[in-house]
Amino acid sequence: MTLSASEVNQLKAAPPVEGVLPAILNRWSPRAFSGRDVAPADLARVFEAARWAPSSNNEQPWRYLAGVRNSTTHRKIASTLGGFNQVWAPQAPVLILGVAKTAFTHNGAPNHYALYDLGASAVLLVLQAAALGLATHQMAGYDHDAARQALEIPEDYALGSVIALGYQGDPAALANERMLAQEVAPRQRKPLKDFVFFSWGSPADLG
Amino acid sequence: MTLSASEVNQLKAAPPVEGVLPAILNRWSPRAFSGRDVAPADLARVFEAARWAPSSNNEQPWRYLAGVRNSTTHRKIASTLGGFNQVWAPQAPVLILGVAKTAFTHNGAPNHYALYDLGASAVLLVLQAAALGLATHQMAGYDHDAARQALEIPEDYALGSVIALGYQGDPAALANERMLAQEVAPRQRKPLKDFVFFSWGSPADLG
Repeated sequence: MTLSASEVNQLKAAPPVEGVLPAILNRWSPRAFSGRDVAPADLARVFEAARWAPSSNNEQPWRYLAGVRNSTTHRKIASTLGGFNQVWAPQAPVLILGVAKTAFTHNGAPNHYALYDLGASAVLLVLQAAALGLATHQMAGYDHDAARQALEIPEDYALGSVIALGYQGDPAALANERMLAQEVAPRQRKPLKDFVFFSWGSPADLG
Repeated sequence: MTLSASEVNQLKAAPPVEGVLPAILNRWSPRAFSGRDVAPADLARVFEAARWAPSSNNEQPWRYLAGVRNSTTHRKIASTLGGFNQVWAPQAPVLILGVAKTAFTHNGAPNHYALYDLGASAVLLVLQAAALGLATHQMAGYDHDAARQALEIPEDYALGSVIALGYQGDPAALANERMLAQEVAPRQRKPLKDFVFFSWGSPADLG
């Protein structure tokens, strides 16, 4: 296993489909991060992308806690990661926790689309990162209660993903065999017929 | 109010930020749709974009029910829309309902990220549509119970948005004053300092 980062990126790219945005096809979630820091201007760009997501009633329920390397927030987020994620993710120079306000600001009613909209905002963040040559990896595997407490997230915010952000590193630097195998395996998705239907369970015929 | 569709698009575009993906800045949610149908190949492209979203454990919980004009599914989705959406959305040649499987397939455990991941997949769908020159508008305003029943969505799937998809129409064709006003108002988002924090409530300084 002596593939370089750029060889891995070729392996990970989805088969090209004419007209489909390259960033969508090429984005993937590495675990090997290099030591290179992310420029504040690029951090601003990824949050700018997150900012323009659509949301129910334009509530924009997303909030992001950004921890840059050596900050208290980076350490706190890293400390809540699950064992497997603890091995690799703290190497990323930026760790971000996304949360969503669960009530509408204008009337206090429950916002059932809070996490849906956070997911939309976060994926634009990681897509924009890919367009800038940055690597990201979203994780659900962290201690949610510990994160809420350590980062003082109010009860009326629901927790989303922790996002590792930085520059892709050398896959060979991953110490763990399972991680190394995943790092160089092609990405897999269901075919369209398994999730696009004209009526429930009947695959859509899109030519 | 005699703005053309392209004049409105200029009004709606977010202020350009160097390096930020144009589709993210230019995507918006019109209510005026033209009569032009969407080619099946373009429908396939928007679902291809939705397909490559990241998801927790690569579960890919999203499923899409696509109703094309004059189909039973289009009629059923249209019939569940709330009063305000009922006025404009049925003109769109494609109405899509996104739903998310709420349990992991490999072990049946609850997937707390099902709607989060559906939101991510759906926003890639609408972003890809924007890149193809198509217009989309996601709606939470529909009768969820009626939609579940009419479209036979199993109980273990959570409902997301209805997405109107088509080509942008003439804003002046909107009959309703409120809709017309919204159609030509600039898009608004919170500034970064209101949602990106280094610690809870402290705006991140990104230069």
